[in-house]
Formats: sequence, structure tokens, C-alpha cells
Amino acid sequence: MSRSLLSITELGPEGVRRICDLADTMAEVNRRPNPKVPALRGKTVCSVFFEDSTRTRLSFETAAKRLSADTMTFSVSQSSLNKGESLRDTIETIAAMGVDAFVVRHGSTGAPWLVESWTEAAVINAGDGWHAHPTQGLLDVYTVRTALGRTGGLDGLRVAIVGDVKHSRVARSTTAAFSALGADVVWVAPRTLLPPVVGERSTEDLDEVIDSVDVLYLLRMQNERMSEALVPHLREYTARFGLTRERAARLGPGTIVMHPGPINRGVEIAVDPAELAGALITRQVTNGIAVRMAVLFDLLSADVTSHALAGGVPA
Amino acid sequence: MSRSLLSITELGPEGVRRICDLADTMAEVNRRPNPKVPALRGKTVCSVFFEDSTRTRLSFETAAKRLSADTMTFSVSQSSLNKGESLRDTIETIAAMGVDAFVVRHGSTGAPWLVESWTEAAVINAGDGWHAHPTQGLLDVYTVRTALGRTGGLDGLRVAIVGDVKHSRVARSTTAAFSALGADVVWVAPRTLLPPVVGERSTEDLDEVIDSVDVLYLLRMQNERMSEALVPHLREYTARFGLTRERAARLGPGTIVMHPGPINRGVEIAVDPAELAGALITRQVTNGIAVRMAVLFDLLSADVTSHALAGGVPA
Amino acid sequence: MSRSLLSITELGPEGVRRICDLADTMAEVNRRPNPKVPALRGKTVCSVFFEDSTRTRLSFETAAKRLSADTMTFSVSQSSLNKGESLRDTIETIAAMGVDAFVVRHGSTGAPWLVESWTEAAVINAGDGWHAHPTQGLLDVYTVRTALGRTGGLDGLRVAIVGDVKHSRVARSTTAAFSALGADVVWVAPRTLLPPVVGERSTEDLDEVIDSVDVLYLLRMQNERMSEALVPHLREYTARFGLTRERAARLGPGTIVMHPGPINRGVEIAVDPAELAGALITRQVTNGIAVRMAVLFDLLSADVTSHALAGGVPA
Repeated sequence: MSRSLLSITELGPEGVRRICDLADTMAEVNRRPNPKVPALRGKTVCSVFFEDSTRTRLSFETAAKRLSADTMTFSVSQSSLNKGESLRDTIETIAAMGVDAFVVRHGSTGAPWLVESWTEAAVINAGDGWHAHPTQGLLDVYTVRTALGRTGGLDGLRVAIVGDVKHSRVARSTTAAFSALGADVVWVAPRTLLPPVVGERSTEDLDEVIDSVDVLYLLRMQNERMSEALVPHLREYTARFGLTRERAARLGPGTIVMHPGPINRGVEIAVDPAELAGALITRQVTNGIAVRMAVLFDLLSADVTSHALAGGVPA
Repeated sequence: MSRSLLSITELGPEGVRRICDLADTMAEVNRRPNPKVPALRGKTVCSVFFEDSTRTRLSFETAAKRLSADTMTFSVSQSSLNKGESLRDTIETIAAMGVDAFVVRHGSTGAPWLVESWTEAAVINAGDGWHAHPTQGLLDVYTVRTALGRTGGLDGLRVAIVGDVKHSRVARSTTAAFSALGADVVWVAPRTLLPPVVGERSTEDLDEVIDSVDVLYLLRMQNERMSEALVPHLREYTARFGLTRERAARLGPGTIVMHPGPINRGVEIAVDPAELAGALITRQVTNGIAVRMAVLFDLLSADVTSHALAGGVPA
Repeated sequence: MSRSLLSITELGPEGVRRICDLADTMAEVNRRPNPKVPALRGKTVCSVFFEDSTRTRLSFETAAKRLSADTMTFSVSQSSLNKGESLRDTIETIAAMGVDAFVVRHGSTGAPWLVESWTEAAVINAGDGWHAHPTQGLLDVYTVRTALGRTGGLDGLRVAIVGDVKHSRVARSTTAAFSALGADVVWVAPRTLLPPVVGERSTEDLDEVIDSVDVLYLLRMQNERMSEALVPHLREYTARFGLTRERAARLGPGTIVMHPGPINRGVEIAVDPAELAGALITRQVTNGIAVRMAVLFDLLSADVTSHALAGGVPA
């Protein structure tokens, strides 16, 4: 049975390091004039997306194609789930066609674990409800590690994750990934947007931590939080938790600024990201390809020869 | 001009055997660690789907990719048919781009024959109205043939096809395919769901035949048949024509159970299919890839060398 | 920085000839049994379509695949633009994944120039508002050039472009492309459908020019022009500006008839196009592949070896 990537917790600290090391190799592949290698030729990766996410889907598909895997996409609107077919029937049917990995995005926490129990194929959690989004956590720590020129862990690094932690699978997976590499994470959020978890450090005062952090990670604020009255007016949210011009001026030159995208300009970040010396937001997207290539290779390459990454696809 | 696959009748008994024999080769390809061969490199297969069917479309596209063909998809919702473009213009335009085969699903009986009259490309009927779905018939007989370890025909095999025969292209093509290989087919359905055809054996009493058949083929019951008052309440349908726990217990250990999917659980099959020793439902899906590879290869490989299936795609 | 193809004006007369010459090579590739070459292996071409156009999108994707590039599609309905993501964020995000060329269709004039200012990737304008559609202009002149057996320009050729010039990006780009090769273009349209431009020859009387032109290029008439009262009843439009049976009979045997498709049968062309000896409408579609291959190769092949077009993809 194939292994799967369902959460950072299950991957563990050694797994996080292994993926980061593999991603270094993949990033080297991506810098070649022809960034395509035959590593997963003959493998099929199927994206099964029950929530719209063009960014994440294109990132996984690009990663799969760089490794010469075939890709297919199953999205709910096209699907025969309309005909009353269950998720389980859908997965078992596609699996029976010979899929090697499913990339699953679903609105319900735990859906990828169900999928894994129904198939021998590898399953990658591409986001389940508010719960987890492990490849985002991996690309975030990989981006910091390479920006700092480190090759091992991130011991002693101070990270602030700011915003709607409660409803964010990114916050959960990115926290877990930084912690796995030894970094210290603090959550900065209004009390209404903190999950009822014990054990994580948190504060409601961004200004208290902004001068002392190495990484400022801003989460996307969903508009629906306003209508749910979990936060006051957007302008007040920005004043208390946004990266305003004043706060940007206080950042040290080495302070890293990150965001999972897409940015609500003027809300989480009220300055032009291009003006922020330490912004790694575009690099997060670029590194997402290398990290997802690493994950796919890690899961699917058991029977692949060592030459698979050495040369380009013959032309 | 390319040949096409429009119906089992036109393919004929020799054609059915030829495809089954070729599918044996393709199944062997699919068992390789790298199940991709260069047989149809440079060919383009275009799916033209006027009805939603993710299962069938993915099956054809997977088959095409295994043979290294390029694929494109034209579905009505994306199409400029909205702009008043006719089906004929659409087909002629796509054909002019250099397509080698069209895979056509359409709600109207006969549409694939029209498409064939407009293009030099090969045309594969992937389902037209209630009329025909020849690759389903082929994969069904191929699945039985391999399960029984036979290499030629199916002389003497007794097959019961149960359910809404009248509105089912699957029933028509699967009956024709079994008959082509020498099997005896009986239709089991309420009189309201039998087509007005002479020559086929039929009965309204499932229990009369269930002990003596080798293959029990259950059709999908569409909910709209109820609203049309062609069948009484679903529960009564299941009691008379479904595979209930009682009937499942009466099946011999060698009785094969088949379904084209997706199953209405609790209606056609009221037990867990996994508990049925003779169920080949998942294998039908898996064999669908090999059979569709065989069909594509049969139609498009005229100028392909004999090495095309011998080795894997170079890696 | 990569060059882009945004308009015929920016491409210039030498560029138009260069693309036509390259398209001759690509047309030769397309006539091979295996019309696939490794020229752009490892490159990624992303279609970004903010207006539905299956024809144009499939044409570009087929062209890209013939050159062994990978393709991805971003269409608005799937996109996170719903989440308030800006066009700029979308382009920058996809670019950061490592795209080599964007093929952009957008309802607003100038959108592809904005896209070009945001990315290092090549940008191809696949239609912006009423403004430009340069690959259509290129495939039109290439089609005439090859039909006439010419290899250089089109000096002295007389071209009439008939219909809704005002709202047609095709009219603008095709006029520019013919003019770039030395042909004389006259616009034939009711005054309400002529753009307020000085310098182009125009007339309201099709019968005045029909006997003397070498090329009769009929534009698609959009139904919305009627509701806007810019043209009277369709039947009157056809009587004055359509290719009726009477006008078709007056055409010389060498007069070329063209249309960008899809045709409103009975409106712009009131006879069966198959009866028109000089109709090149299907060849326009076929040549669209060769021309788009030429454009992609021209923009992306800087680091490609000279062998890339010599042999087929190894099989």
C-alpha cells in the first residue's frame, strides 16, 4: 500500500526535513532550461476537488507534469455525483482505472482520511475544511529555510501567525510545520478568531510581538467573518492586525513577511507587497512547485531508478 | 477513411473477438510498472460530450494517454454552440485542426453516425440516447471472458440482464456483445420497461431465472422512471427485480454479478457489493481502460510499427 | 525578457513574413504521420480566457502540444477571481509557478498589454475586446499566401472585408496583416458599423466591389447588433451585405472566400460554403494550428537546438 500525506503531524519532523531536502533537488531541476524529468513517467495523478481552488490545483498539476506524470481532474460540477453517486463510489471507480495518487480538496474535515481508507493509491490532502493543508505548511517552512540558507531545522526562529487562525487550515499546518523544525510560533488574533486549543502561545496584541519576530505570517481574512460578527469593521481589523505602513516601517530589514495568497490588499497587508524588503510571497508560490514535486516523488517513486532525476526528458 | 466504432452490430462477432484479443495485450501493458507505451504518439483524440459523464470520459482519456496520444475535451457548456454554432460546424472545425478520433456522447440516437458522415476522423460512439454504448458492451464481455479464463467465445453462457432495458443503451450493446460471442441472453423487466422488440427472450420473473444463470447483469434504475409511473414505488421494484439479501444467498458461488455503475445502492443491489463473491463490478471499470485502449489502437494504429507496444516509453 | 505578440502593428511587416515562413515549416511537420516534435519540451503555455472561446483555445493548445509543450488552462469560472483576487494577482501567481507563455483572451481592450507589464513570460493576445486578435490576422494572410502559392508578400492583392468592422477585432487585425504584406483592403459595411477611423478605404456598396476583389472576407454578424438597432432586420442585412446565391454566381473562379467562423448560415453566407469553389474557410482553421505553432516557436525557442524540428518525438 502506498503511503499518503494527510497532515504534518502524521508526516512528523523527519518527514518534514526529508521533503525539504528533496525539494532542494526539485528546485535545481526547475532552474534548468528544460525543467522536465522522467521520474514519474507512467504514473497518473488525479485531482479531486470539491472546492474551487485553481491556484492549488494548477500547482499540483504543474508539479506532476514536471515529473512526467499524467494528470486528470475530477471536479464536482462535472461529476456524476449529481446522479446520486457517493464520494466512495467515485473514488473507487477512478481508482479502478489505475490512478497512483489522489490530490483531494474537500470542505469537510477528515475527507482525505476517508478517501485513503477506500483506495490503495496515495492520497494527498490539498485542504480539508478548516483542518489541514500540509503542502502549504511544507512550502512555507521550505521557503524560510532556503531564504535563510539553512539546510537543517529552524531552531530558535520566532514566527508570528496573524489573523483568522480559528478558521484556517493554513494556520494549523504551517504552525505544525514550523514547530516540527524547531521554530517558536505565536498566534496573533482577536479572541473570537482563536481556536479553543491549549498549548499554543497566543496574543491579541500584534505590536507586542512585531519587533521581535523573524517571520510575520499574515493569514487571509475572509469577508464572511465580518457578516458573522466575529470581527468588527474591516478598517478596525486592519488597524489592529494588518501590516500597515507604520508597522512595515518598524520591521527589521531581515524580517520575513509571508502570506498564503490571494492577498486582500488593504486588509491584511495595507502596503504594496513589492515595497517590503523581506516579502517572500511570490517565492512561496514558486517553491510550491518544488515542494509538491518532492511530495509526489516521495510517495510514488518506490520503483523509480536513480537516473530519473539525472537527465532531462530526451528531446 | 478511418474506420469507426458505432455499434456492436456493425463491429460484428469477429470484431468483438478481435477487440477482446487486443485488450488482453493492453491489460498486460497495464500491469507493467510503467503502463505507458508510445503506440499512438502524435495522434489526437477529442472527447465531444453533450451529456455529462465523467466516468466514461476519464476512462477514454486515460486509455488514450496510456497509448501516448494527446487528448482534448470539448464539452457543451464551454462551447460556442451557445453562439448558435451547429454540431456540424463544431465537428468540422475541430476536425480541421487535425483530430484523429472523436469520442462522442450525445443525447440523441444516431448522432455519432452523423458525426462520422462529416469527418474523415475515426468516430467512437460513447453513448447515444437510449440506443448504443458499444465500448460498454465490449468491456462487459471482455470482463466475463477473462474471469472465466476463456480465450474464444462464450457459447452456452446464460446471461440475465435485469431492469430498465427499454431506456438503456447499455442493455442493447451488452446484449449484442454477449450474443456476438454465442451467449444466451434473457431480459428481466416489468413489461413497461421492455422495448417493443421481437426476437429477444424476456421474462417478468427474476426468481424464475436466477438459479440457472451464469451472469446476473443489473442495470441502473433512473429515478425519473418513477415519476413517469413506469415502475411503482422503488421498494416494490427492489422486491421484484433487485438483488436482495435473499436472492444473493441463492446465487451459486460461480454466479457472476455485474453492473455498469454508478450503483443505486439499496435499489438494484440491496446488499454490499463487496460481500458478493461473484461481483466483477470493479473489474468492469479496470477492464474498461484495456478495452478502450484496444479500440483506439484498432482504429488508429494503421501506420504504427510493431514495436509500439513492445517497450515502455523511454525514460 | 521574452518578446510577446500583442498586435500586428507591433509585430510589423517583417514579423508577419517571418511568422508566415515559420508556418510553412510547421505545416510540413503537420503533414507527417506523427506530427509531434520536441521543439518546446519543458515549456509551459497557460491559456487565460476571460471570454469563452473553445475554438481559439483548442487551436492554441493543439499547437502547443504538437511542439511538446505542457499546457494549462485558467478560465474565469474556475478561478479564485470570485474571491476578489485581482487579474494582476492571478497572473503573477501563475507566472511564479514557472509559465513560459500566457495566451490571453479578455473582453477589455488592452488587457494583454497589462498582463505583459506584470510578467517576464511571453504574452500572446488571443483577442482583447473589439481591439485586436493578431493570430487570426496571421492565419488569414498565411492562408491566402499558401493558396496563391506565393512565398513573399501580397502586393496588389485586392481584399474586401465585409460586415461589422466596428465591433470586430478580427477586422482590425486581418486588415493590418493584409496591409503589412502589401495588399489593398477595403471595408464594406453600413455606416453604423464602421469605426470612426481615417485612412481606410470603405464603401457601403458590396456590389460595387465584388467583381473586382481577389479576396472576399465576410465577418460574423452578432445578433446583438440588431437589438442595438445598428442594423435593420437580418434579412435586409443579408440582402445588402451577405454572400447570396446571386452574388456567389458573380464571383470569379479564382475569388477567395473567407470567414473567421463560426458562420451564421443564411446571414453572412446564404449559400452552402461547400459549393463555393474559392472558399478557404476550413483551411483557415487548419492553418491556424501551423501559424500558432510558428508564433509559439518564435517566442519561446531562443534556447532550442536546431534539431528540435528535424525529427519526430522518439517513440
